[in-house]
Amino acid sequence: MEHLADILRQLFVLLLAAKIGDEIFKRLGQPPVIGEILAGALVGPAVLGWYEINAETSLFAEIGVVLLLFQVGVETRLHDLVRVGPTALVVGALGVALPFAGGFLLAALLGSPLEVAIFLAAALTATSVGITSGVLRDLGVLGTLSGRVILGAAVIDDVLAMLILAFASGLAAGSVALDQIATLVVVAIMFIGVVLIGGTRLLRRRRSLLTDPVFAETPFLPGMIIMLGLAALASQIGLAAIIGAFLAGMVVGESSERHALEAEVAPVAAFFTPFFFGAIGAQVNLAGLADLGTLALVVGVTLLAVATKFIGAVIGAIRLGWAQAVLIGWGMVPRGEVGIVVAGLGLQIGAIDGELYTVVVAMAILTTLIVPPVLPMLVRRAGGAEELEFRDDG
Amino acid sequence: MEHLADILRQLFVLLLAAKIGDEIFKRLGQPPVIGEILAGALVGPAVLGWYEINAETSLFAEIGVVLLLFQVGVETRLHDLVRVGPTALVVGALGVALPFAGGFLLAALLGSPLEVAIFLAAALTATSVGITSGVLRDLGVLGTLSGRVILGAAVIDDVLAMLILAFASGLAAGSVALDQIATLVVVAIMFIGVVLIGGTRLLRRRRSLLTDPVFAETPFLPGMIIMLGLAALASQIGLAAIIGAFLAGMVVGESSERHALEAEVAPVAAFFTPFFFGAIGAQVNLAGLADLGTLALVVGVTLLAVATKFIGAVIGAIRLGWAQAVLIGWGMVPRGEVGIVVAGLGLQIGAIDGELYTVVVAMAILTTLIVPPVLPMLVRRAGGAEELEFRDDG
Repeated sequence: MEHLADILRQLFVLLLAAKIGDEIFKRLGQPPVIGEILAGALVGPAVLGWYEINAETSLFAEIGVVLLLFQVGVETRLHDLVRVGPTALVVGALGVALPFAGGFLLAALLGSPLEVAIFLAAALTATSVGITSGVLRDLGVLGTLSGRVILGAAVIDDVLAMLILAFASGLAAGSVALDQIATLVVVAIMFIGVVLIGGTRLLRRRRSLLTDPVFAETPFLPGMIIMLGLAALASQIGLAAIIGAFLAGMVVGESSERHALEAEVAPVAAFFTPFFFGAIGAQVNLAGLADLGTLALVVGVTLLAVATKFIGAVIGAIRLGWAQAVLIGWGMVPRGEVGIVVAGLGLQIGAIDGELYTVVVAMAILTTLIVPPVLPMLVRRAGGAEELEFRDDG
Repeated sequence: MEHLADILRQLFVLLLAAKIGDEIFKRLGQPPVIGEILAGALVGPAVLGWYEINAETSLFAEIGVVLLLFQVGVETRLHDLVRVGPTALVVGALGVALPFAGGFLLAALLGSPLEVAIFLAAALTATSVGITSGVLRDLGVLGTLSGRVILGAAVIDDVLAMLILAFASGLAAGSVALDQIATLVVVAIMFIGVVLIGGTRLLRRRRSLLTDPVFAETPFLPGMIIMLGLAALASQIGLAAIIGAFLAGMVVGESSERHALEAEVAPVAAFFTPFFFGAIGAQVNLAGLADLGTLALVVGVTLLAVATKFIGAVIGAIRLGWAQAVLIGWGMVPRGEVGIVVAGLGLQIGAIDGELYTVVVAMAILTTLIVPPVLPMLVRRAGGAEELEFRDDG
């Protein structure tokens, strides 16, 4: 009973703080998610200590980003993604290749063993699309060309990151089972392919499938069930849970009752997403950075992470024009919770030590914090307003 | 990552099972919550083992019943509760006194020491209004006279149960600090009074308070924040979290944007409440009842719990007529999670042993399971349809 009171109080504090931060930044004309992240940092362990990262609050944060990507998926149509497919593929591939090469080279220069080099490189590759899609959604430009390239590239990015992580884990364990890794990748690609093509086709043929007499009045609860199921499945086969949620959203978004669905998902997402953004802030821990050598490493690794991802993605998207490419490159920069998960895995199997873990977590948070303030300007430069016509496609 | 996949899968399984159970029982003309409870029992540890009670799933269950009572509170107006106040007071008081006396006498007859007797008596007193209000809400008769008496009596019941529990805990610890208990009760009554009268007055004077420029478009997020805050506060001062959520709902329900609020709370509640009903089913554990002596004790204690609560509440409500009194008496029978919390506390401080804990938990679950199937018939007998005119008051 006391434990429950404690958790309820923490959820209350974070939601209240995030909401206040959100309102303040809205008034300042800044992305509201920055206000939520800073509010999370303020009430979190580093400053006030009114909110902690534990099993329950982590789950709320995770459900928050799962719902955000589900919502993004509902607003995204398959043919829009397919149209940007080739560009997204190049952006995703180069946006993985350059950070990986950069991380590997840095570790080699520092004289680290091979498995440390591969783990650092793996931690630098993963993109977390949660923050960027949150900001683009707030700006109403998620359906633009750049928004769709970012979403498509994030899916491809996640498959490649899974491949690298499986390879790195195998190497750290002493043996790389190439057949197992191949199986993993085939399963992941099949999962994405079957869900996307099979699922959307099924729903497009029978648009009322989820609201038929078999099921309830609106596709809301069936949608939530599919979201949880595909997020769990994606997570189980080594992809990020948010990729499963995004695919679930795309499938369910084909339902004939899509607008009723959107209206019902909106409050659930509005309730949960502040826990995601707030938890990112609450994870900020400055104590580990007191050592000057560690701090220098954080700055170096973060600059490397930003530069390699940005340059890779910009090259991949350059045929869309400079302004679009810069927007896409910047939107791919956040490592978010995916980077932290990779670092945690590396620590767990002993491939990296405590110091490098702190460095990677700090890099993941820093790359996530620097993106939202600059995105609105890049959207304007890329002609966000004119591009809005693309939204009617969906 | 694996742990997260695991939790997401469990939430998926429970939500899917509960939804299927819900639909089946709707078609059978039975209360859908029974379908959700049975589905929870099926996928829970006792049968399939696809769902377990852990920190994360317990939180979802708790938020489920908190949201249910918040929703009930939004649909309840203060003057409706005040109007039934005297009846609710007598129902609550007699519905606590008789089970307490019964439990105490039984323990005395079995030769148990004083602290065991008081703890058993305390566990028999607490009413959990979640199940009953869920069923009455589904039937659309929450706003009737009987519905309001049940809600009012549940609030009074909870204050009295808190008093008894504080007394029992003090006795088990060796010293009863009467001044501390008096403080607790005064704090609880002040909490309820200040929130209800102060909160509803404040909002009635400034009906747009929660949607003013200070805050967002609709009172939804402010409402969720107030709900979490008052649930945490109620839990902190020794009341049930659901009482705080109910009060929060009554306050926020005074907002001028009440209908927008209801429309936004509905999907969030629809998402969460199946985790509450499902978790009740998942808690069913038949293994502890293999011993015939324990089984006999379960049957005896459960019959005692049902009879004393029912008779006490019926006597309290008899001036409303027989059919109404029977409906109210039956609606007060479930002990639900409140009974389990009391038993857990008794086990923790050593006042009761493992066998008695199993017995009390089984009693709490049984009293909860037997109520929904009979309620619709009692509502019809009490003239639920004609009574519906009361609903327009709110």
